[in-house]
Amino acid sequence: MGVAKKIRVGMVGYRFMGKAHSHAYRDLPFYFDTEVEPVLQAVAGRNEVEVKVAADKMGWASYETDWKRLIERKDIDLIDIVTPNNTHAEIAIAAAEAGKHVICEKPLAMNLEQAQRMLHAVRKNNVVHMICHNYRFAPAVQFAKKLIQEGRLGKIYHIRATYLQDWIMDPNFPLVWRLRKEVTGSGTHGDIAAHILDLARFLVGEFDEVVGMMETFIKERPIGEMTGGLNAKLEAGSKGKVDVDDTSAFLARFKSGALGVFEATRFAGGNRNGNRFEINGEKGSIRWDLENMNNLQVYLADDEPGLQGFRTINCTEEHHPFAGAYWPAGHIIGYEHTFINLMKELMNGISRGYSPNPNFEDGVRNQAVLEAVEKSVETRSWVKLEQMSLAKNY
Amino acid sequence: MGVAKKIRVGMVGYRFMGKAHSHAYRDLPFYFDTEVEPVLQAVAGRNEVEVKVAADKMGWASYETDWKRLIERKDIDLIDIVTPNNTHAEIAIAAAEAGKHVICEKPLAMNLEQAQRMLHAVRKNNVVHMICHNYRFAPAVQFAKKLIQEGRLGKIYHIRATYLQDWIMDPNFPLVWRLRKEVTGSGTHGDIAAHILDLARFLVGEFDEVVGMMETFIKERPIGEMTGGLNAKLEAGSKGKVDVDDTSAFLARFKSGALGVFEATRFAGGNRNGNRFEINGEKGSIRWDLENMNNLQVYLADDEPGLQGFRTINCTEEHHPFAGAYWPAGHIIGYEHTFINLMKELMNGISRGYSPNPNFEDGVRNQAVLEAVEKSVETRSWVKLEQMSLAKNY
Amino acid sequence: MGVAKKIRVGMVGYRFMGKAHSHAYRDLPFYFDTEVEPVLQAVAGRNEVEVKVAADKMGWASYETDWKRLIERKDIDLIDIVTPNNTHAEIAIAAAEAGKHVICEKPLAMNLEQAQRMLHAVRKNNVVHMICHNYRFAPAVQFAKKLIQEGRLGKIYHIRATYLQDWIMDPNFPLVWRLRKEVTGSGTHGDIAAHILDLARFLVGEFDEVVGMMETFIKERPIGEMTGGLNAKLEAGSKGKVDVDDTSAFLARFKSGALGVFEATRFAGGNRNGNRFEINGEKGSIRWDLENMNNLQVYLADDEPGLQGFRTINCTEEHHPFAGAYWPAGHIIGYEHTFINLMKELMNGISRGYSPNPNFEDGVRNQAVLEAVEKSVETRSWVKLEQMSLAKNY
Amino acid sequence: MGVAKKIRVGMVGYRFMGKAHSHAYRDLPFYFDTEVEPVLQAVAGRNEVEVKVAADKMGWASYETDWKRLIERKDIDLIDIVTPNNTHAEIAIAAAEAGKHVICEKPLAMNLEQAQRMLHAVRKNNVVHMICHNYRFAPAVQFAKKLIQEGRLGKIYHIRATYLQDWIMDPNFPLVWRLRKEVTGSGTHGDIAAHILDLARFLVGEFDEVVGMMETFIKERPIGEMTGGLNAKLEAGSKGKVDVDDTSAFLARFKSGALGVFEATRFAGGNRNGNRFEINGEKGSIRWDLENMNNLQVYLADDEPGLQGFRTINCTEEHHPFAGAYWPAGHIIGYEHTFINLMKELMNGISRGYSPNPNFEDGVRNQAVLEAVEKSVETRSWVKLEQMSLAKNY
Repeated sequence: MGVAKKIRVGMVGYRFMGKAHSHAYRDLPFYFDTEVEPVLQAVAGRNEVEVKVAADKMGWASYETDWKRLIERKDIDLIDIVTPNNTHAEIAIAAAEAGKHVICEKPLAMNLEQAQRMLHAVRKNNVVHMICHNYRFAPAVQFAKKLIQEGRLGKIYHIRATYLQDWIMDPNFPLVWRLRKEVTGSGTHGDIAAHILDLARFLVGEFDEVVGMMETFIKERPIGEMTGGLNAKLEAGSKGKVDVDDTSAFLARFKSGALGVFEATRFAGGNRNGNRFEINGEKGSIRWDLENMNNLQVYLADDEPGLQGFRTINCTEEHHPFAGAYWPAGHIIGYEHTFINLMKELMNGISRGYSPNPNFEDGVRNQAVLEAVEKSVETRSWVKLEQMSLAKNY
Repeated sequence: MGVAKKIRVGMVGYRFMGKAHSHAYRDLPFYFDTEVEPVLQAVAGRNEVEVKVAADKMGWASYETDWKRLIERKDIDLIDIVTPNNTHAEIAIAAAEAGKHVICEKPLAMNLEQAQRMLHAVRKNNVVHMICHNYRFAPAVQFAKKLIQEGRLGKIYHIRATYLQDWIMDPNFPLVWRLRKEVTGSGTHGDIAAHILDLARFLVGEFDEVVGMMETFIKERPIGEMTGGLNAKLEAGSKGKVDVDDTSAFLARFKSGALGVFEATRFAGGNRNGNRFEINGEKGSIRWDLENMNNLQVYLADDEPGLQGFRTINCTEEHHPFAGAYWPAGHIIGYEHTFINLMKELMNGISRGYSPNPNFEDGVRNQAVLEAVEKSVETRSWVKLEQMSLAKNY
Repeated sequence: MGVAKKIRVGMVGYRFMGKAHSHAYRDLPFYFDTEVEPVLQAVAGRNEVEVKVAADKMGWASYETDWKRLIERKDIDLIDIVTPNNTHAEIAIAAAEAGKHVICEKPLAMNLEQAQRMLHAVRKNNVVHMICHNYRFAPAVQFAKKLIQEGRLGKIYHIRATYLQDWIMDPNFPLVWRLRKEVTGSGTHGDIAAHILDLARFLVGEFDEVVGMMETFIKERPIGEMTGGLNAKLEAGSKGKVDVDDTSAFLARFKSGALGVFEATRFAGGNRNGNRFEINGEKGSIRWDLENMNNLQVYLADDEPGLQGFRTINCTEEHHPFAGAYWPAGHIIGYEHTFINLMKELMNGISRGYSPNPNFEDGVRNQAVLEAVEKSVETRSWVKLEQMSLAKNY
Repeated sequence: MGVAKKIRVGMVGYRFMGKAHSHAYRDLPFYFDTEVEPVLQAVAGRNEVEVKVAADKMGWASYETDWKRLIERKDIDLIDIVTPNNTHAEIAIAAAEAGKHVICEKPLAMNLEQAQRMLHAVRKNNVVHMICHNYRFAPAVQFAKKLIQEGRLGKIYHIRATYLQDWIMDPNFPLVWRLRKEVTGSGTHGDIAAHILDLARFLVGEFDEVVGMMETFIKERPIGEMTGGLNAKLEAGSKGKVDVDDTSAFLARFKSGALGVFEATRFAGGNRNGNRFEINGEKGSIRWDLENMNNLQVYLADDEPGLQGFRTINCTEEHHPFAGAYWPAGHIIGYEHTFINLMKELMNGISRGYSPNPNFEDGVRNQAVLEAVEKSVETRSWVKLEQMSLAKNY
């Protein structure tokens, strides 16, 4: 451990995702031996009082009040972008042009054109890049991937995936940045539908065509701001129009012939964080649920007749990807470990000179699906991914 | 009991649904006191050897080898149609014109036009009519309806429903009538998507528009026939083309503003009979799963903070519709009881002169949704229910 | 079916268990082909008004107001005893001496001495006998037995079983016969601990020694009577002392070397009918829960590493004992079907001249365990089954 | 955060528990603001190569090869004991006499006499002390405690608790220190039965009397050693006798009148870490399972009739103790967080001068229960806690 090369991280932003990333950098060397190791070098934020507190609390060695300053610093190797979506492109491109490696929160950008420019920039400047779709890195999801790759499910027929939340159901929950189109691009769609379509691409492959629907149930809300996690506080006075979607659902066909059904919503009461999928193949099926994220349900069609049924596998064993680094079987891990595992991949990529999946190319492909769904909502009909004109070039 | 008026039933068909209906008629008076009681008067089938065995086994007093003869008989009050879909219209219309009450298996017909003629016939002849969407009659589903009607969930935002099976995944499962368009009209769509859209209409209300996709994964199969239940036997030799869907999925908007996501498939390995739904309203959510059909999961948003979560309610108490007739709390009932409960409603309807829901009007409305989905598949775009031209007239 | 020999049943008693048995006799020929078939010939009860209503409702051809008259009748082949426990011995012995076959509700008797006299009577008179431990006959439990018999679990190390209910937790629930020692012998112990120890004997084998505890939480209750199911009505006025146990728990060693932990209670709120067990063997484990009685959870230690976990098997397939007679896979059955399956065994026994398990010998062995636990409570120490002096003779 | 006083920790031992404690010290300041903060000052172990690697890997500033040296060091404020059980007493007493605060892994000692001497030492020297029963600190368990303290369950009738594992079922799993009486005192009993009886004392109160059974299924094993987590490696050659229990089960009565049923085993295949309990009170019930440790099942008897059932509460909300420091609702935490929460309590205790529960007094009381069970096994009869002679003095 002592001899690992240090990768000096500069993180832009410091709230919910900033906390998750900071923790992952701190915990990574405790659990894994990687060739390079992250150092919490500097964090940037516009509000000096708040960014200083955050830096202290989370263990960053220094802070900046301008992200451009962070990119100028010679003692930064990796820029980590955990800011609202409308800032991703500018920061990522600047970082790439300054020769920094880049990791960026999802969705990659406000739209496909931005995402493609970002991909162009990281490629041109030959820096390592990743997008932070952390749920790919739950051991149970990684194990699902392994089973599919080994052909244990056979040809895939179906994926159905939901991401159900309920944190904005109260009409008095304020109009925070996550509900303002100019900042976020879309609502539920880019925030959590993005996660399940990324999981689908990871596990089932590329999309061919989609048709969707989106809706905003609460059209107007009091003004306010996020305060950390998924909490918010009201500001006094006026109301504002909600211009992003509360829910997004779409049907899909994959290039492989598989069919997909996707639904994301923040209006599914009782579902605090219902990121769930089921995949059915000719030889077996799997089910996963983030709220019990250590478990994978696996059905194998060639199990002995009479003994067929979904197995509940607690993916905490050495046989399950990443799990061996943590605790003995049955001693579960949680949400934050998905980030630790992802950062392990990032460090491996930086050490060995490749951009691990999911990277900016995945970000572009995901953005193309998001945008194709939006286009299908406008046109009220199916949209082929190949119709997404810019998408042809990557 | 002793004094109840007898309703003499003539049933056309005698396989899977014939068994379910026969049992329900036999068991109804044991559990419920109804003003009129069914008598298993006669069963009709073309194969005399088989129909005689079935009549003996299931307790029918007599049999006919021609359903027309059944309708002519004066000692029959109610015609029960459990034959393949392509025969429903002719039999039902003939029965109605002979002044018999009619209960018909789902889907009501091969298409919307047929369904509307059937509705017209029962109305014109003033006979009682029902369609056999039995899952409405699980106590947990009835209790769900009660909660929604009482406003316990508030305004409904979402329904997501699946009907997942796996009994034809083997490519050597034969090409039985349920897989032949000329007999069945459609495959998974009319057979099991029909059930979940009926549950949606029951619980959420009328559909406004839909867009769907359908697919046939196995295009050719060996010839064969159903042998009871969902079993089949191969015939020697040749193969045939599968001309119905293996899966059907669709997005929907309801007139109330609710959104729906529906998926039915026979290619979801490990899901023997996965008829499941979740409904989210502003004040609460419910979940149901046929494979544990006695349970209803209920989430109430006004539960005390910290104590919020889905309750697993075993709907076997006197507080749950129909359940009080059976066993003490915690002593579960099964699939067959949904038919007993339905037949209780039918007997009440006949006794009091009304057609209980779901009746032929529901059958027509369900058929319109089925057909709108099919039309959306052809046109690759959303279809309004009001576009279903014939549907205007009912 | 038409040619099956008829077994004319005379049933003594007609409440909760009377309903369950009557239904089973009615439904048996619908689902199964047996060599002999039950006929609901006559039911006996002291209250003529009530017994007449019950006979009409449940389909008995006649009734008697004195059970002795039932035994005298030449047109009765089988006596079915569903009366309170303090009457079992007298009725069963009289029936046996009259040459009638006998089926008796559990527990077999008020004590071991009575149980042994009953066994002696049926043996001496060479009649077929059974005790109605219906839970053995859930398809999932039968499948568990098959797995164990085939050695799929290997040597058994552990059984832990609970029977948790909550129907008398209200201190105002009245002092019904099930809570009066002179009528019932014991409380929870003989009523539901009896069921789980019978399942243990069925699945794991004979008990060697036990040590237990029993408790009565509510010492005094208002007077009242059962009204059907597990319901009761209060009588006006006075209170009475509860002289039976509200709960019973015991540790056990089996002759095979397995260990058992058992607990039965009527004070486990939220557990309407929590009859559950888990068995662990050197090669695998199984779990069962009556409230989801169609499912068996099965763990097999030789499953591939990484893919090990409990399988949820919905025991509704043709591969599962008894299940093929009912509905297609995934169409669940319920509580009442355990009685139908049991009666099928009884009919087979009568037809072929043997007493199927569980029979009066099982009843005696179960009674010995019940009594050994009671003795251990008195002596505050372990009691060997072989110490149960009378138990030596069977 | 910068101004928090530092508590310099010296940890003796560095394997499974050493990893868990080290991580907790590192993570504590990230999640919580405490008045004092731990510093990973020095770790001790006899094997210099291994302890050096461990110190590097886990972030300890220095190491010692003799625990006595650690206690002599002036720059150590807190001694943390994560060594095998036969060393706890000597180290803890020496630490206390050197004026160091002490935290010790469970079980506190090899026997009650040792445990009492340890308690005497920490009291006499007025140092803060804790025993590491970490499962008390799962947010769901803390929330359970809160519900019970608030009277939400009413008078407690029952607790049933199991701790089921399967990691030594293979007869070739070696005879490691955890299976050798001279090192560990007992097997399953002190290792995991200790955890569930501690949870029972935490939630239900003090034990009054117990009766138990213990068994060793595999009497002889090859020699070997633990290698971290619950893994082990074989040494070449000879076998040794297993002189500790593979399983331990006992019945209990509590001083409050509640009844308890406890079972711990390492021979329950498929149960990787099945630490589970259910508690039933007059007004409600709760259930918890370590493998889904974020969830608490809660049943409230005063829920509206018809709507009664266990609620599945994901205890990840601000309303749940400790949970607010981590992630938004539905983003689960894991095993390691129980240690972080415990260490928060310890730091509070050190800061404010008290010994938080569970402390050495709890350790003594737990040891008395363990020893009473062992005595009951010898005497084959119930043992009163008050009979544990030394136990009188604390």
